[in-house]
Amino acid sequence: MGNFIECCRGFWCGPKNPNVRVSLPIVCFIWQIAMIILFGLFVRYDIESDAHWAEHKKHENITSDIENDFYFRYPSFQDVHVMIFVGFGFLMTFLKRYSFGAVGFNFLVAAFGLQWALLMQGWFHSLDPVDGTIKIGVESLINADFCVAGCLIAYGALLGKVSPVQLMVMTLFGITLYAVEEYIILNLLHVRDAGGSMVIHTFGAYYGLTISWILYRPKLDQAKHLNGSVYHSDVFAMIGTLFLWMFWPSFNSAISNHGDGQHRAAINTYLSLAASVLTTFAISSMSAKKGKVDMVHIQNATLAGGVAMGTAAEFMISPYGSLIVGFCCGIISTFGYVVITPFMEKYLKIQDTCGVHNLHAMPGLIGGIVGAITAAAASPTVYGQEGLVNLFGFTGDYANRSSATQGGYQAAGIAVALAFGIVGGIIVGCILRLPIWGDPSDENCFDDEVYWEVPEDEESIPPVLEYSSHMVGKNPDMMSESNFTVEHR
Amino acid sequence: MGNFIECCRGFWCGPKNPNVRVSLPIVCFIWQIAMIILFGLFVRYDIESDAHWAEHKKHENITSDIENDFYFRYPSFQDVHVMIFVGFGFLMTFLKRYSFGAVGFNFLVAAFGLQWALLMQGWFHSLDPVDGTIKIGVESLINADFCVAGCLIAYGALLGKVSPVQLMVMTLFGITLYAVEEYIILNLLHVRDAGGSMVIHTFGAYYGLTISWILYRPKLDQAKHLNGSVYHSDVFAMIGTLFLWMFWPSFNSAISNHGDGQHRAAINTYLSLAASVLTTFAISSMSAKKGKVDMVHIQNATLAGGVAMGTAAEFMISPYGSLIVGFCCGIISTFGYVVITPFMEKYLKIQDTCGVHNLHAMPGLIGGIVGAITAAAASPTVYGQEGLVNLFGFTGDYANRSSATQGGYQAAGIAVALAFGIVGGIIVGCILRLPIWGDPSDENCFDDEVYWEVPEDEESIPPVLEYSSHMVGKNPDMMSESNFTVEHR
Amino acid sequence: MGNFIECCRGFWCGPKNPNVRVSLPIVCFIWQIAMIILFGLFVRYDIESDAHWAEHKKHENITSDIENDFYFRYPSFQDVHVMIFVGFGFLMTFLKRYSFGAVGFNFLVAAFGLQWALLMQGWFHSLDPVDGTIKIGVESLINADFCVAGCLIAYGALLGKVSPVQLMVMTLFGITLYAVEEYIILNLLHVRDAGGSMVIHTFGAYYGLTISWILYRPKLDQAKHLNGSVYHSDVFAMIGTLFLWMFWPSFNSAISNHGDGQHRAAINTYLSLAASVLTTFAISSMSAKKGKVDMVHIQNATLAGGVAMGTAAEFMISPYGSLIVGFCCGIISTFGYVVITPFMEKYLKIQDTCGVHNLHAMPGLIGGIVGAITAAAASPTVYGQEGLVNLFGFTGDYANRSSATQGGYQAAGIAVALAFGIVGGIIVGCILRLPIWGDPSDENCFDDEVYWEVPEDEESIPPVLEYSSHMVGKNPDMMSESNFTVEHR
Repeated sequence: MGNFIECCRGFWCGPKNPNVRVSLPIVCFIWQIAMIILFGLFVRYDIESDAHWAEHKKHENITSDIENDFYFRYPSFQDVHVMIFVGFGFLMTFLKRYSFGAVGFNFLVAAFGLQWALLMQGWFHSLDPVDGTIKIGVESLINADFCVAGCLIAYGALLGKVSPVQLMVMTLFGITLYAVEEYIILNLLHVRDAGGSMVIHTFGAYYGLTISWILYRPKLDQAKHLNGSVYHSDVFAMIGTLFLWMFWPSFNSAISNHGDGQHRAAINTYLSLAASVLTTFAISSMSAKKGKVDMVHIQNATLAGGVAMGTAAEFMISPYGSLIVGFCCGIISTFGYVVITPFMEKYLKIQDTCGVHNLHAMPGLIGGIVGAITAAAASPTVYGQEGLVNLFGFTGDYANRSSATQGGYQAAGIAVALAFGIVGGIIVGCILRLPIWGDPSDENCFDDEVYWEVPEDEESIPPVLEYSSHMVGKNPDMMSESNFTVEHR
Repeated sequence: MGNFIECCRGFWCGPKNPNVRVSLPIVCFIWQIAMIILFGLFVRYDIESDAHWAEHKKHENITSDIENDFYFRYPSFQDVHVMIFVGFGFLMTFLKRYSFGAVGFNFLVAAFGLQWALLMQGWFHSLDPVDGTIKIGVESLINADFCVAGCLIAYGALLGKVSPVQLMVMTLFGITLYAVEEYIILNLLHVRDAGGSMVIHTFGAYYGLTISWILYRPKLDQAKHLNGSVYHSDVFAMIGTLFLWMFWPSFNSAISNHGDGQHRAAINTYLSLAASVLTTFAISSMSAKKGKVDMVHIQNATLAGGVAMGTAAEFMISPYGSLIVGFCCGIISTFGYVVITPFMEKYLKIQDTCGVHNLHAMPGLIGGIVGAITAAAASPTVYGQEGLVNLFGFTGDYANRSSATQGGYQAAGIAVALAFGIVGGIIVGCILRLPIWGDPSDENCFDDEVYWEVPEDEESIPPVLEYSSHMVGKNPDMMSESNFTVEHR
Repeated sequence: MGNFIECCRGFWCGPKNPNVRVSLPIVCFIWQIAMIILFGLFVRYDIESDAHWAEHKKHENITSDIENDFYFRYPSFQDVHVMIFVGFGFLMTFLKRYSFGAVGFNFLVAAFGLQWALLMQGWFHSLDPVDGTIKIGVESLINADFCVAGCLIAYGALLGKVSPVQLMVMTLFGITLYAVEEYIILNLLHVRDAGGSMVIHTFGAYYGLTISWILYRPKLDQAKHLNGSVYHSDVFAMIGTLFLWMFWPSFNSAISNHGDGQHRAAINTYLSLAASVLTTFAISSMSAKKGKVDMVHIQNATLAGGVAMGTAAEFMISPYGSLIVGFCCGIISTFGYVVITPFMEKYLKIQDTCGVHNLHAMPGLIGGIVGAITAAAASPTVYGQEGLVNLFGFTGDYANRSSATQGGYQAAGIAVALAFGIVGGIIVGCILRLPIWGDPSDENCFDDEVYWEVPEDEESIPPVLEYSSHMVGKNPDMMSESNFTVEHR
């Protein structure tokens, strides 16, 4: 309670207090206990992960265990899992002194988010009408990871400027919004979005950007010296980039239809990503005075092709279509880093640490549009009658929907994702402005010191002080001298 | 021979001699040649990896190649493989100057261990009664990797304090003990332990801890300055943590029953791990003065949920059951790092470099207990009659075993693993005290210089000059001053 | 145009101009646009990734989607993908100041190469005779990645000494040569080489070595201070090593026959690699004065066992046979690093940055020879009649080929790979000597500064000071002098 009042005072009249010793454990414990209770009430194994599968299999005339959905999806699931934890986590380690926060808070947020996502998505998508429980299997795990991806994208815009408690709150609401948005887009509008160009990327990016806009820090320049990379941190970030890049075909194909659907989604994404790399290098080199390539572009814009294939990957967009999408997105995304991000920061007051606008927002929108066009152009000649029906789910209530109509609904999906991102971001941003979440002061942004026990040895940045502190450790006699030097600066 | 005498002298009257130029090559060559001979005598392909499979398939009425066990297990095998080499290897890179030893000796030990494990496990588990050979397939490879995991856990307790030759000896005996212990637990007691809470983690941890106790170094403080991390080494260690964390569902499901068994094991482990992360963050933040999270906890205790699901993952423990296990283990494991490890070092004379007691020993015991309870509570209602029989193998000699009895045997399994770890550790520890293995002196512990050619460049830059050189880059005016200081030393 | 002339002048009379601001974007754009056009004209989905699969499946009486080739090969494909981008990329990060170039240009070259490979290999291997198009599926993606591997091996020999534009040209020709060579070996000679000992490794290594010979830089000593590692860069390189090592079983099995073929290839490679590790450690320790292990050997020679199993992995070489191959290759490869690489540099004028001669050339040749011998010794007793026919494809035109003849053809394959590597390397090397590609001057080799925006912070430690600081560490008497030097600059 004293802590709470102190925090409030700090907000109104003094420096911020980023001590989360009370709030972080409280949030973690309460939310984890709530998860346990809710899982106890609602969550059960689906038939393919239940020991009754042996009897079910006989009943359904399934001849082999290999037809368990596990074997169709588990390898893709693990790839997606790597993208979420290593991919997103390491992609954000590029800052010179925020690698712990990048990879650590990414870990925390994702681990909480996936539990909440299993519940939220379960209530909306797989509630058993008979017993009111949620049945989970490997596909649920993938969907939970997807849902988390949306929030991690939002974290990219906020990186270094928020406390872990704020991130937890952001995730709680983000997952909730995601589940509703996804329900509207996939179930009510009956839109296809297997790799989530709209549902994940557009939503996540605008959610994060809007929050960042609400939390605008006019004096962020005070932490300017930490808002950049060092040599090794850029190499760490490439670990994230590459695992995202390599496994994106799995991401876009993970929940596609069995058989040709997954197969095609992987191929299209693979091609689109490859094209992005070349145009990213081209624009990056062109935009520098001496033709030097910029690591920021390579770390991010090379991935734009994967984002933009999120919707159309499972469609018959054809190999050269995929290449064209990747080609354009690599250009647009790199251009975004060169021109749009600085513009947004200066004129729109949006501070976008990782440039999620360039990597997720724009390519996500493009992906939605490409998907709408491709869907509208779908014909039985190209897909086969049966293939068309299978892919777009033109059965039951939707048996009479034409491809053109489907295209229209796809486009409507983009608008829904955008609206949820922006409106949700405004609301959550306002909640995060409450002075109780332990966010860092401007000069402490991008600094692991605030929330982490950083090893002493390399910690104090200004070289002068690094020197003097070393001296102290080694030879106390020299302390006065070396400090003199510092004093005289 | 001269080398041998010199070593002995060093042990009794002078400084230790960590030169392994003779002993390491000898051990590597002799053991590798022994492996080739033994493999030549004993090891053959099993029917699913033999070219005769084409005929066998017809004979057994198998319709498709996809029913080859390879496709059920290979993706999990590769995940486990990553855990062994990248997971364990990088997890141990956290020390500031022992990353080569961590990742390099881990590599050496694992590469030897898996060969020896194929033989040892083969003799005990899959000896062909007809021709006396061992038949190997993908499941054997997974089991060999598991067996290696036990020894790598033990390495965690010894990290930085032993020579590579000692590690090889430790592994030779460790694998042997493991195979016998596993045979007793899985075959004689007919206990289920698919993810090895008992067989791998309990055994491995107590084996390592006991050896560490025998090899106690009272003057280890002399290497205190190296027994800690630096910023980048902590980030490297997170690579290990995350690959372990992400792929643990594959670890626990890799050798479970086809179909629902593997499926369920993956889900349970996924959930348990997620819960561990939240409670680890909570306790870590609570236990620090200013609420700062400690990287050591995040790198290790987040994994406790996976260890503790090693036995029960394939059981119908239900999703919320998994969450509870992870919840508790995250707390206990972090608490261990804060309280128990220092206590053990001070009062029990056990120096546990990586804290394997917190990550493997305690969660392993918990896992065994959870498994015993869950097994004892198993009923045909929950599992289906057929599911129950399939899962626990209540056929043949065990057709009449009840769930309650099974629970008792499961509990007995814990005791066996513990006994093998401790007794084996005492014997092997005494062997490793012989003065012939080239172990480092106390002040050389945790230092790659002893066994590795370390690049010259970064090793001995005295802080003073690093400072002055920085100055030069930034502010030439200060150069003279700072250098003066140096001159006056 | 002015740029072109300036470059030429630089070549003949002045310093080189490594500015690629014009050339790199031009190459990237033109080649990517060409890819799009050619893909539009030629590339289509194969039946298993086409939406018509639903109808095809019925027609072919395929009962389940799980028999789509996707599920046989996708997990292996992703492992291979990781090897290409993270494996090769990070393996080359060992240089202290060329990590961006290592991982970044590897990324660029691979992303271009795989597109061009899909076309080239398609024209030679899978051109549909009916409509003249190339049909691609998951196996095509794996083959494209394989093809890229050949060029990345060549990059290993050139690392740090060429411009990105040169790499793109080298890749364009490399892929072309590869596709022709592969067509001759696999189709015309009907040789088996599933893991590419000949086709990938022998070709790629000699291609790169020959180019390096043509581009010999007599004054490369000027960049000597950058041609080495630092502590952390060696740890980064281990990421590459381990992912290559772990996933090599997937590499060698990725395009083997379904069922026992893939299964056996994985087992053999796993064993061979394990044996390599032990002998590498042994020779590395033996060859150093104080028995200290050298990271360069561990990073590279441990992989030789995988290279050398490229041809024979799918054969019935038997487990101990695999161990013997790994045993020998670990020795030879480490020996190569100790003796042959310095010899080649001094006497043969071949500067081989990563030692591809030791890791790929020699083990590749050995792999070809082992494959030829194993094939010649194949008998129906060991393989089963059906197994023998399936594995070696003794059907159709080849129905009467004997095992002995097959062995002869296998040996001929080695010669073809070698010839293509050397002759191709000479031609391409001469093209790369043209003064228009923006290659770095001798003193700028191994330096990321030339082609990358390197973060300011750590970049400008003047070598003089780095040097002087060393002095201090070694010899305190020199301290004042070295600092004087600094003052007087």
